[in-house]
This record gives sequence, structure tokens and C-alpha cells, in this order.
Amino acid sequence: MSLNQLLQEIMEEITPKPEERVKLERLYQAYMDRARRAAEELTSDFKIFLGGSLAKDTALSEDTDIDLFVLLSPDLSKKEFRRLGLEIGERTFLGHKPIERYADHPYLEATVDGVKISVVPTYRVEPMIWKSPVDRTFYHVQYIKERLREEQKREVRLLKKFMKGVGTYGAEVRVKGFSGYLCELLILHHRTFLNLLQAVQCWSPPVIIDIEDQYRGDVETIQEIFKGQPLVVIDPVDKGRNVAASPSAKSLASFISASWWFLRRPSRIFFYPPPTQVDVDEELSKAGDLILLTFRHGWMVEDTLYPQLERMTKKIGVKLKENGFRLLRAGIYSDFMSASYIIFELESKTLPKRFLHMGPPPFKAEEAFVKKNLNRGFSVWISEEGRWVSSRDREIVDARKLVEEIVKGVMIPKGIRNQVRETVRILADEQIKKDLGVNPRLREYLEDFFLTKEFWVLVNH
Amino acid sequence: MSLNQLLQEIMEEITPKPEERVKLERLYQAYMDRARRAAEELTSDFKIFLGGSLAKDTALSEDTDIDLFVLLSPDLSKKEFRRLGLEIGERTFLGHKPIERYADHPYLEATVDGVKISVVPTYRVEPMIWKSPVDRTFYHVQYIKERLREEQKREVRLLKKFMKGVGTYGAEVRVKGFSGYLCELLILHHRTFLNLLQAVQCWSPPVIIDIEDQYRGDVETIQEIFKGQPLVVIDPVDKGRNVAASPSAKSLASFISASWWFLRRPSRIFFYPPPTQVDVDEELSKAGDLILLTFRHGWMVEDTLYPQLERMTKKIGVKLKENGFRLLRAGIYSDFMSASYIIFELESKTLPKRFLHMGPPPFKAEEAFVKKNLNRGFSVWISEEGRWVSSRDREIVDARKLVEEIVKGVMIPKGIRNQVRETVRILADEQIKKDLGVNPRLREYLEDFFLTKEFWVLVNH
Repeated sequence: MSLNQLLQEIMEEITPKPEERVKLERLYQAYMDRARRAAEELTSDFKIFLGGSLAKDTALSEDTDIDLFVLLSPDLSKKEFRRLGLEIGERTFLGHKPIERYADHPYLEATVDGVKISVVPTYRVEPMIWKSPVDRTFYHVQYIKERLREEQKREVRLLKKFMKGVGTYGAEVRVKGFSGYLCELLILHHRTFLNLLQAVQCWSPPVIIDIEDQYRGDVETIQEIFKGQPLVVIDPVDKGRNVAASPSAKSLASFISASWWFLRRPSRIFFYPPPTQVDVDEELSKAGDLILLTFRHGWMVEDTLYPQLERMTKKIGVKLKENGFRLLRAGIYSDFMSASYIIFELESKTLPKRFLHMGPPPFKAEEAFVKKNLNRGFSVWISEEGRWVSSRDREIVDARKLVEEIVKGVMIPKGIRNQVRETVRILADEQIKKDLGVNPRLREYLEDFFLTKEFWVLVNH
Repeated sequence: MSLNQLLQEIMEEITPKPEERVKLERLYQAYMDRARRAAEELTSDFKIFLGGSLAKDTALSEDTDIDLFVLLSPDLSKKEFRRLGLEIGERTFLGHKPIERYADHPYLEATVDGVKISVVPTYRVEPMIWKSPVDRTFYHVQYIKERLREEQKREVRLLKKFMKGVGTYGAEVRVKGFSGYLCELLILHHRTFLNLLQAVQCWSPPVIIDIEDQYRGDVETIQEIFKGQPLVVIDPVDKGRNVAASPSAKSLASFISASWWFLRRPSRIFFYPPPTQVDVDEELSKAGDLILLTFRHGWMVEDTLYPQLERMTKKIGVKLKENGFRLLRAGIYSDFMSASYIIFELESKTLPKRFLHMGPPPFKAEEAFVKKNLNRGFSVWISEEGRWVSSRDREIVDARKLVEEIVKGVMIPKGIRNQVRETVRILADEQIKKDLGVNPRLREYLEDFFLTKEFWVLVNH
């Protein structure tokens, strides 16, 4: 099959079918009405608009959310805005059980007939005088609707499906990938999915895309403003914002890698990842030494909990390295309902007692270093490089004990500190194997940990 | 006792006594005569001069060599020069058993009445048209004799004794310290021993001393010529030469450190190091893991063998580190007659099987890395930093085996390769302890290895 045939085939599969469109149309009209009625009961100053991929007609088949935005008066205080916004949502979803989904912005979400519907309050403001983080959305939707041509919508869908396939779609904290809006802008700029994939091969960070030429080619200023960001896509509705701020180095690298392998040998697997089997017991026998930390907690918003788990993982990782342990990788898992897991794979969970401690050159104050080490009974000498060094005993040679120490200290983020202290369990290899027998969820998490997400290099296609 | 009293006392102890001077005078006159007669039998074109500390009157009591230089015609070929020089030496030492001491320059040495006498041929050339590495010596001697005042000779002796005490005296390959000539120049420049020690406290590399102002303060040119050399003392008889090229970073650092501690609390111990006891068995129990390499050989010139042992040690050290071992320190010992020892102290002589191998970012060619690792059955993934990494099995997890491999390879310097291959033994901890019982020389070497040469920080004086 030719590349074009393949893309054509996938395009057809992922474009919403007419009956699907009818159903969505019916649903969003119904809930727009409900939201309008709910709002009318509470205020006279509002407007409702449809956002998201449905509004822009870039949604994937069988994967469409309905995002209803309620534009409210910019005169409302944060508190009134929040109360009013949530109340409109509550009344819209009367008879359903909406979920509160807010880390930094209040909104409600309910699932109706298998379709996720959100009611999100936003301020009705002119561009650039944003009062809440979602006020830009109205203008994003306008911008895309006005510019994206019919044939480009298909290209956006291909790109989104590809991004989903290779695990780089979505700006959520857990993925740190490419948002839908970013995908749309990339297609606007590069016109087609294949053009983009080809362009990506020549990307060398920092990559700068300024579609509306808001900086008039002044690359220096852009680099100054968005320093350290490998991919900069200037928001057409706000030149101070990088739409591509969320993709992590890992997401960016994964997308670039997948693009390269796809162009080399196009295949359906990039859009429909093959199921991969992980034999946890076999992986365990091949892996380095594992330290598993798990604690219990109540329901927490993903956007709140996940960054805290990440911070904790990073801090423990740094401490492990500082103490001489060599970290292979770390993994985070949470059901956001009851328990979280953090896994560290180390070269070895124990270290030799002795280690070389670097001191100052004699040109600097050496007395403190020398005395401190001599007082503790350690050897000191001047190295070939002309620096004081010391052969010291490590205080901690057991990674499990070190993690225990850290968990007792102040390095655990405040938001989960109590839960961690009260319920944490820290297991090493043998205990993990033991736990596996009685804890099916642990097996699931380990499967995910050992799964190579970069499947495109694994499959001989 | 005041600092001045202490220095006065030591000065008196280290100045050659009148009877000693008489004996040396008699000896060097006698051997100068013998050398003159020997030379006359072989050529009419020669001149004999006394060099070394005896000529400059900067020798230490009971520690004086007699260096006789035979100036020969610059028209002689290298071969004739060598033959003639050695023949004069042979005839001078008729009845003794002189030792041949040449790595890159031929000369003979004999010990008579407990005094070392050397006969060294040199070319009679004008400055800057040197034909052999010792042709400058004649001018060095003249330079110092003309400039060093009586009271400064005492300061030179103090400095030399101090340097000997703290282990930084001598330009030999084994010490890589300060030569006698360098000590004399440092006193010429700083006038007194104490001045120098104080000046040293403010040294911050690169330190530049141009006594004759041959570069007229052009520091940039000096730094360009002597790039990377921390201490530059321009040779008054050859502006292209750094007299301080031989002190290693370690020697320089040791001297600076010892100066600081001495100024803080002056003591005899800096000039007369206290005997230090090393309990090898105790040190062994405290040390990291040891790998000992030993091989047998015939008599070899120190200046030839030692650099080869150093090269070998360095190469093995680099390989150990490359393979993931953490090196605490290495030691070299040789009797230059029959056997040499190289000791490596490691954090651990074994490593975990697994290790993290860094690959390229996807911006570069990634295919080779990915395929190579997958083909060997290793996991690959994209790290948080956006680079390919791989969790691989180490090929070598045992330091002893690695050293065995290296010794078989081409990394051993040619001059000792055969001896090493044919007689090498590579021992690890338990075997070392076993060998200690039957090999008293090994105990001696290990004592030296564990001895902290920076005794001045150890002694509570």
C-alpha cells in the first residue's frame, strides 16, 4: 500500500461518521439549551459558545468531547465568577452526577450517552486583558474556525491520531504532550501532516514558529523571552505566550523519533499501537535493583496530585544520586483515588562503604576540610590533580534506608506530606516480588513501568 | 621558641660543617684531577667544571653530591660525544664500580667515601644553541654563583630542607618536585625563605616569575608560550624554558599546603618529618577493595621505567573508570632491580550487572544506537531529558578480570610489555592478604601506599 493510500484509509477511519455527527449535534444543542436556561435563572449578562475540537471540526471519530463555555461579565470578582460558573454547571447537569474538575480553574464535567460534556465559565474580555487562564479559548476557537480549510481539518485529525498513537498527545501534566490547538497551529503552518513530519526531521532546538509574524522575524527577542524552551509556537492571539510550552523534552524527542521511523517505513502501527505484552516476572529478573514507595490517599485532582508526585520523585532521585546511587529510571503511577506508587530502578540498591570525597585545592581554605575528615578518622591526601581528597565511609549504603530517611524529612511536598508519612511503605526487590502475589494492581503498575513506550522502534514493520 | 630562633637553629644544623667542607674539597679536587687526566688521554679539547650545589655553596650538610661536568667540543657528533663522555667517566672511576645513569643523557656515577660523584659530559656551546639537555647547566652555575649572596645561601638551604621534609624536593620523575636550581631562583626572587612561604599563600595559578624581566611584563605572551603550566619561572639563561615545569600539580599543592600550615604553627617536623607507623593489617581492613598488579623485570634505569609504570597506571585507571569502577587512588612501587607493583584502591572491585548507557538525542542519528541495543536484548527508551538511553548489561563486572584483559592488550608501554605479559600476577583482596604473609617486600610497599605523605596535617604540633 502506498503512503497516500495508507493516510487516506486512516483519514476515513478517524473522521466522525454522519450518524455520529448527528448524535453530537443533538447532544450539544440539548446541553447548550440546558446551560442557557440555567444561566438565565442566575444572570442576564452571559453568552454561551461551543469550544473544543467539535467547534473547529477537528475531532476524531468516537473520541469527541463537548466543551461548552459560558462567557461571563469581566466585572465579576473571582469569587462571584467561580460561584456563578459552578452553579450554572450544576443546574445544566441536573439529574447527572457531574465531576468537579479544577486545579486552577473551576469547571464541571459529566458523561452523557458516552460523551464527555464540560461546562466551563470564562470571562468575556478583549484580547490581552485576560482575567482567567481559559479566556483565550474563545479567541483560539475563532482563529482556527476562520483559517483552517476543509482539507486541513483532515490533516489535523491525522496528526492528532499519530500523536495519540506515539503517546505525545495532550497537554495534561501526566503526558506533557501536544495540545489540540498546538496540532492545529502546526498544520496551519506546515499545511499537511507529511510536510510537518518532514520539517520535524530538520528541527534543531530552539525551533521558532511565528505564524502571524508578530515579532517580524526578530528571533533574538523571541529567544530572550522564551529562553530555554526548545519549541516556541507564538500564540496568534497572544504574542507573549508559547503554545508549545507544555511538550516536555521527552515528548518532543518521542515525536521527532516517531516521525523519523514513520517516514522511513510508514505503517498503521503509529496510529494504532499494537498491544504489547510485558512479562513482569521476566522483566524483574533482568532489571536493576528496585525500590518501590507506595502510599494511600483520598481522591485528588490529577492536575494537583501528579505534579506533587513528580516533585517528590525528582527530589528523591537527586538525593539518591547525591549519595552515590546510580539511577537507571523512575516511574510514577496513581489511580488518583486511593494509592500512588513511585518506582526507582537502581544499578544497585547497596553501595560500598568507602568512597572518594573531593575537597578543595590548597589555594582555598583547606583547614576545615582536613580537620573535619581527620576528626572522623578518615584518610586525607592530596591527589595527583592537586586537590585534597578524602577516603570516607558513607553514612548510607542502603537505598531503601535512604528513601525512608527522605520520607521522614521536609522534602515531601506539603500537599501529600501527611498521607505519605502516615501510610508509606518502602519495598525493595524481594518484598516487591512477595507483594506481587497479593496485589494485582502492583502487577499492573509494574507492567506499565517495564513497557517500552517507544514501541515504533520495537516492532519490525 | 620563636620562629626566628627555630629557623636559626635549623640553619646551623643543615649548613655543612668545616670538617665536612674539607673532606668534600679534598674529594672533588682529587676526582677533578682524575677526570682531567682521563680526558687528556682522549682529547685535547675539553674543560672540567664543578656544578651542583657544591659549586653554588647551597648544599645541605651530610647530603652533598659532587657533580663534575666535562665540557666537550660542539663539533662532536652525538655518538662521539657519548662514547668520549662515558670513556672519561670510566677512566675517572677506574677501580670503582660506577653505575650507568642515563635515560636521555649519558653519564656515570660512583659512590666514594659515602659521597656520590658524577661525571657528566656536556657540549661547550654559547647560550641558546644547546646541543644536549645539560648544556645549560654551566650557565646556571655561573648565574647563581654571580648573584646569590652569602645570607641567601642559608635561605636556599632552609627551603631545600623544607622541600625535602614535605616531599616536594627533586625534579626526578618519581617526585616531580622542585629542583635545586628552582629553589635558588625562588630565593633570588623572594629573598628569604619566609618571604617565599608568605608569597605562596597568595599564589593563584598561573603564577609567573620572570626574574630577568626577559618578557618585559608581557604576561599574555608568557601565558601563550607556557599554556596550562600553573607555575612559570622563566630561566634567566633561556627565556624559552620554564624552570618550574617539573613540579606536578600534587607537588605544587603539597608545598602550598605545607607552607600554610608551617606559617600557622612553625615546627621542626616540617624539616625533620616524624616517623609514621602504618599498621598494614588495620589499613587493609579499612580500605576499599584492592587490585594489585606485580611483574618481574631486570635492572632498569629509574628515569626510563618509572614513566612507563605511570603511563600503564594511568591507562588502566582510565579503563577502570570507563567501565564504571570508581577509583579511590593508585600507587606505584618499584625497586628498579627485579619487580614493580601497581596498586589500585577501588570503592568496589565488583559492579552491578545493569547500567544506564546514554545514547543520542533523536535530533541525531538514533537508528544505530537503537538497533544495536535492541539486537543485544537490552531495553531502550527516551529519557526525561529527551535522549535515548539503554539499560544494558555490563560486559565486565569484575575489576580483576578487567585488569587481566588490559594487560593482554596493547595498552602496556612497549618497553615493559614483554616482562609484564610473561610474569604479571594480578591479585585481589583475599589473595593480597595471603601474599602478605610470605612476601615482606609487599608489606613494605603497602605501608608506603597507606602512608599519608601530608604528615603536617596529621601531627598535632
